[in-house]
Amino acid sequence: MAALRGALVVGQSGGPTAVINSSLVGVIEQALAEEQVTAAYGSLRGIQGVLRDRFIDLGRESSQTLSRLRRTPGAALGTVRYKLRPEDYERVVEVLRGHDVRFFCYVGGNDSMDTAHQVHLVAQRMGYELRCIGVPKTVDNDLAGTDHCPGYGSAARFVALATRDTGWDTESMGPSSPVKIIEIMGRNAGWLTAATALAREEPGDPPHLIYVPERPVEDAAVVGDVSDVVAAREHCVIALSEGAVPDTGMGEVDAFGHQMKGGAAEYLERLLSTQLGLRVRVDKPNYLQRSFSTCISDVDAEEAYQVGRTAVRLAVSEKSGVMVALERVGHDPYRCETVAVPLEQVSNRERLLLDTYISERGNDVTFAFLDYARPLIGQPFRALARLAKYAVPPLA
Amino acid sequence: MAALRGALVVGQSGGPTAVINSSLVGVIEQALAEEQVTAAYGSLRGIQGVLRDRFIDLGRESSQTLSRLRRTPGAALGTVRYKLRPEDYERVVEVLRGHDVRFFCYVGGNDSMDTAHQVHLVAQRMGYELRCIGVPKTVDNDLAGTDHCPGYGSAARFVALATRDTGWDTESMGPSSPVKIIEIMGRNAGWLTAATALAREEPGDPPHLIYVPERPVEDAAVVGDVSDVVAAREHCVIALSEGAVPDTGMGEVDAFGHQMKGGAAEYLERLLSTQLGLRVRVDKPNYLQRSFSTCISDVDAEEAYQVGRTAVRLAVSEKSGVMVALERVGHDPYRCETVAVPLEQVSNRERLLLDTYISERGNDVTFAFLDYARPLIGQPFRALARLAKYAVPPLA
Repeated sequence: MAALRGALVVGQSGGPTAVINSSLVGVIEQALAEEQVTAAYGSLRGIQGVLRDRFIDLGRESSQTLSRLRRTPGAALGTVRYKLRPEDYERVVEVLRGHDVRFFCYVGGNDSMDTAHQVHLVAQRMGYELRCIGVPKTVDNDLAGTDHCPGYGSAARFVALATRDTGWDTESMGPSSPVKIIEIMGRNAGWLTAATALAREEPGDPPHLIYVPERPVEDAAVVGDVSDVVAAREHCVIALSEGAVPDTGMGEVDAFGHQMKGGAAEYLERLLSTQLGLRVRVDKPNYLQRSFSTCISDVDAEEAYQVGRTAVRLAVSEKSGVMVALERVGHDPYRCETVAVPLEQVSNRERLLLDTYISERGNDVTFAFLDYARPLIGQPFRALARLAKYAVPPLA
Repeated sequence: MAALRGALVVGQSGGPTAVINSSLVGVIEQALAEEQVTAAYGSLRGIQGVLRDRFIDLGRESSQTLSRLRRTPGAALGTVRYKLRPEDYERVVEVLRGHDVRFFCYVGGNDSMDTAHQVHLVAQRMGYELRCIGVPKTVDNDLAGTDHCPGYGSAARFVALATRDTGWDTESMGPSSPVKIIEIMGRNAGWLTAATALAREEPGDPPHLIYVPERPVEDAAVVGDVSDVVAAREHCVIALSEGAVPDTGMGEVDAFGHQMKGGAAEYLERLLSTQLGLRVRVDKPNYLQRSFSTCISDVDAEEAYQVGRTAVRLAVSEKSGVMVALERVGHDPYRCETVAVPLEQVSNRERLLLDTYISERGNDVTFAFLDYARPLIGQPFRALARLAKYAVPPLA
């Protein structure tokens, strides 16, 4: 039987990461290298581009564009959050068939892996031979079946550096503004918030408290934790998942009749200022966490690229209905390989922060987590310094 | 007459910048190099350290510490926001006299320059020969008498990169979340918000709208601006000074009896979602703007260091009651020199964003501003890429 030949379509879906385009470039470069792939098309705005028959010819892009794209934030093809209706899937397969597409790579998170899975199943049912491969990306790191997700390492690097630096700033302000909250992405999963611990070097380095959605903590316990840290150090830096505290008190309606938009950080800010009478300052870097390309992890960028290349290799070697996953095959030195896992084991599932990665009291991470995550954030950080502070004898 | 000999005291005051420690190292290294300076002391927590007689011997710090300190965020000596009472000043001079201090360098913003000036005047009145030099630092860039302030260039670099990257993220999300607001520090001065324009390369690059405190804009005009940009581009990225919109509507009290903390971004978010029915997303990097050391501008770090060194040189050459300022002596290539300006021309004054740097409609900066600010942010940015998007002909 002759090998399957035809065009390849790649799309990007869901929230971008700082390296989602690195995966795109991996797909493009490998597609152009495979004899079976007759053309490499990009679908504009994910699956919506297929439904609307809006494709671009990626093979005509310049090599300089592809090179720069590997470190360009945002999703270069445009992205979409669109839940396909059942009747849409047949249209997807018809459009792909019309363009003689035989290979379909979809870059995204949980929902997108489900989309890729459904396209695979519908094509099968319609008797159209189409190889569907999922390419993982998410800063939430919450996909099942993989050691970690491309995009996580770079976001982790950013939040680690941000928490370190805003923490040192807070330390130097002392008692006048002793509490800093940095709110981190993750409605259900605390992986990214946990990563704020990765720039610690010495005892006392920030963050001093870490709260994740997986381990809800009573208000009184948080107030006690903060009070203890401030008593010991004169300041306290808290990394808080956006999903770590309940929405209580956030149902208020403002003067315009809108729901008050305050999130986790605002809730905790009010709680601490009310209960402890301390001045609390808040950082909400929000979308910088998934886009700040100055902090791309070199490990993450390379893995994102390789995951894209492997997707195409799997497609041309007769795989379909699988997601490319990362399997950790070496710990010291760290090394990951790309493998294939069935999409049905991935789609619509959510992998939360492991219980063994959360400290007993639910306000920090464990060494096991640091061991897991440290290799993912890439190149070492530049070392900072505290003064030794040799005291000058005071006047008599 | 023999040259004045004695110890030097340096203190840091006000909000830290990413390079405030670079100025500290400049002071230390030059102090240790001057024969007239018998010891280099650090005052812990600014002027409070003098009042409390809490000094450290900076000459005993290791060279490695000093080298690393140049890129360490926060204020290494600790900082303070304390308004001296009249009786405090005599105590300051007495403590300095007690330690045989003849040189006093104070690193800070407007208020701190006033403190340095008052110490200078009180020492003069008390007949104690003390050389008082102000060392400028502020991310707000609002000090009079200097081309720009150390600390501004690095903060400007951070906000330019952050706005660029979160803007590209927004562009790729398209119509589903078309509006992004990034809130930038600056209650009265728009210098830092203006700097968000510095990473633009092509027409259409973010930010699309810039609002600064110096040029209040009516709500209706902002709504019109945003509506126009979204109509033209399907998305809109807004850089908003924290002081750019009135506090209207923010006086509400929440369920705990606290003032609602929403600031400029929340105000604009409500306005746009109410008036235009668009989904608005907000980034508030807050204290990252003044601390994020990964984005230190090499020009800024070097100038901060030189400003510190010059402070000591001025002190030992019989100057007092002056601030070190930067004077631009070359435009292409850019070059600044350090000069001395009288503290009385600086203290308690505020230099706002020049009118010629704000566009006619009050929603952007001018080319003149870009020319002024571009050299300050240092090393070039890594180039990003957009796909050329060669269309594939749709099916018949």
